[in-house]
Amino acid sequence: MKKLINAVDDVLAESLDGFAAAHADLLVLGEGRKFVRRRTLVPGKVALVSGGGSGHEPLHAGYVGPGMLDAAVPGQVFTSPTPDQVLEAAEAADTGAGVLLIVKNYEGDVMNFEMAAELASMPVERVLVNDDVAVEDSLYTTGRRGVAGTVVVEKIVGAAAERGADLARLKALGDSVNAATRSMGVALTSCTVPAAGRPMFEIGADEMEFGVGIHGEPGRRRDTLRNASTIAEEICAAIAADFGALDGRQALLFVNGFGATPLMELYLMYNAARSRFERHGVSIARSLVGNYVTSLDMAGCSITLSLLDGETLPLWDAPVKTPGLRWGA
Amino acid sequence: MKKLINAVDDVLAESLDGFAAAHADLLVLGEGRKFVRRRTLVPGKVALVSGGGSGHEPLHAGYVGPGMLDAAVPGQVFTSPTPDQVLEAAEAADTGAGVLLIVKNYEGDVMNFEMAAELASMPVERVLVNDDVAVEDSLYTTGRRGVAGTVVVEKIVGAAAERGADLARLKALGDSVNAATRSMGVALTSCTVPAAGRPMFEIGADEMEFGVGIHGEPGRRRDTLRNASTIAEEICAAIAADFGALDGRQALLFVNGFGATPLMELYLMYNAARSRFERHGVSIARSLVGNYVTSLDMAGCSITLSLLDGETLPLWDAPVKTPGLRWGA
Repeated sequence: MKKLINAVDDVLAESLDGFAAAHADLLVLGEGRKFVRRRTLVPGKVALVSGGGSGHEPLHAGYVGPGMLDAAVPGQVFTSPTPDQVLEAAEAADTGAGVLLIVKNYEGDVMNFEMAAELASMPVERVLVNDDVAVEDSLYTTGRRGVAGTVVVEKIVGAAAERGADLARLKALGDSVNAATRSMGVALTSCTVPAAGRPMFEIGADEMEFGVGIHGEPGRRRDTLRNASTIAEEICAAIAADFGALDGRQALLFVNGFGATPLMELYLMYNAARSRFERHGVSIARSLVGNYVTSLDMAGCSITLSLLDGETLPLWDAPVKTPGLRWGA
Repeated sequence: MKKLINAVDDVLAESLDGFAAAHADLLVLGEGRKFVRRRTLVPGKVALVSGGGSGHEPLHAGYVGPGMLDAAVPGQVFTSPTPDQVLEAAEAADTGAGVLLIVKNYEGDVMNFEMAAELASMPVERVLVNDDVAVEDSLYTTGRRGVAGTVVVEKIVGAAAERGADLARLKALGDSVNAATRSMGVALTSCTVPAAGRPMFEIGADEMEFGVGIHGEPGRRRDTLRNASTIAEEICAAIAADFGALDGRQALLFVNGFGATPLMELYLMYNAARSRFERHGVSIARSLVGNYVTSLDMAGCSITLSLLDGETLPLWDAPVKTPGLRWGA
């Protein structure tokens, strides 16, 4: 294992300390490093809280800040945060309008966020993200996995929260953005969790994992590595088939790197995916290309298509100021 | 070689097409894909033009846009752009106030940008970036190499250009920012150029290249991989020694990933570097952590310290709207 770390047990703590110091203008680290919270809360705004296992940076802590999350709860690498972490984050972020939990669909996350919600004294709603069309059940998941589409949900719901939408409205919006968002990924290499010290899975020099999850979970099949166009063709076809009719719709096309794939390849995949979706009649109104929901040092990428409408497009465009996603008015 | 590509000869073209399509609101691709230019030029503003070999994305094309570059010239991977590319970009970007070329110190780049400057009919000045303290001469370089500090020069000079500074002033500012900026890197793995199909260099499973260049050039020594604190200690000491007195200065601390290193490790390195520079009496006023000047799929990072003063700090903070660096007022 080749990593820029000190002791394996200290990786998350030292990384969070660096993260909090680098972004001290935007956020603070909670006691015991249990959560990351915006430095300045907006009174009366619904608090958005997300989280999950670490190793997907900038997700989730990197999306804390004006226009997106109020707090994020980092678990150990690829491990759900505990219910008390989630509860403390919710309490620290709530300003009286309630808390919306944005949860990726993994059994541990679902259970621990649910326990926190039951213990919470403020009104709590939950949006479950399950955008991965690759497989129906998986290693840690009943149903579909929540992957890169989580960023889209957090961004759009975050903008609506900033504009004063109430808890019920944000819950409905989050559910509808999730329903309008589909993803699928491919891995060329495995990733290595520091504490394990070895790759999550074995993969041959000429192989890819088609439909991989963001923790290296198996996808649809192990196959010989194909060229970019062939991979894009199949992923886009799977996403389009899952949507059903796409003709005449406008969408965000999001090509997400898993951590070790050069931007050059991600833009090449974007190019391949864009032409395929356009053939399905989709108008690509917005684009996002880069490492936004990673899997440590895994090589590969996912493609996400998220349909936008007259309400959600301006919310996507609204200002955001977080370590991982940032733009002005 | 495991890459998300089609034919090796088409990698750059397909990637540029995707890049231009994804960022069509900000920029246009020149004829024959010779350069990338801002979609809308600012009449009377000095044009900033940079470029170099591809494979360092988002550098340079990713820094084209308001507040930073006017045009960028992409060579083939790790290969200097041609003089005619640079000349065409300069002509396409000039609005009458002249052109400032920002050039990383590699022999090919220096020669080709110089030839373009000689052929140009408008006033041209050049800023040479050579921030790498690792070694004096190197594989493609006489003197010091230009590495991650290039982003800092482009950002600060870009902001000053936007505010109307003239060519002579921008040249002087660029030289002084370069002189106030020092970097050094470490590689844990090699990178693989698509056309070569094999790693640039061999490196053992327990080794690091200490002081590596952004094309995998040899650094100070090949050594056993050390822990993050030890690596940060030595890099920060080398940078501090090169600066001489640092006590009481304020600076930007920039930890740059080479492409395949997780953000988690980059923040951990930032944490280690920050405490060391603070011990040297530096006040870390601004921070940048992420993949900004990459080396394809190389694992590792560089640390850059750039001293800021009453003039350059507000220029660093000024709004910027490019694919690779973006923030509001």
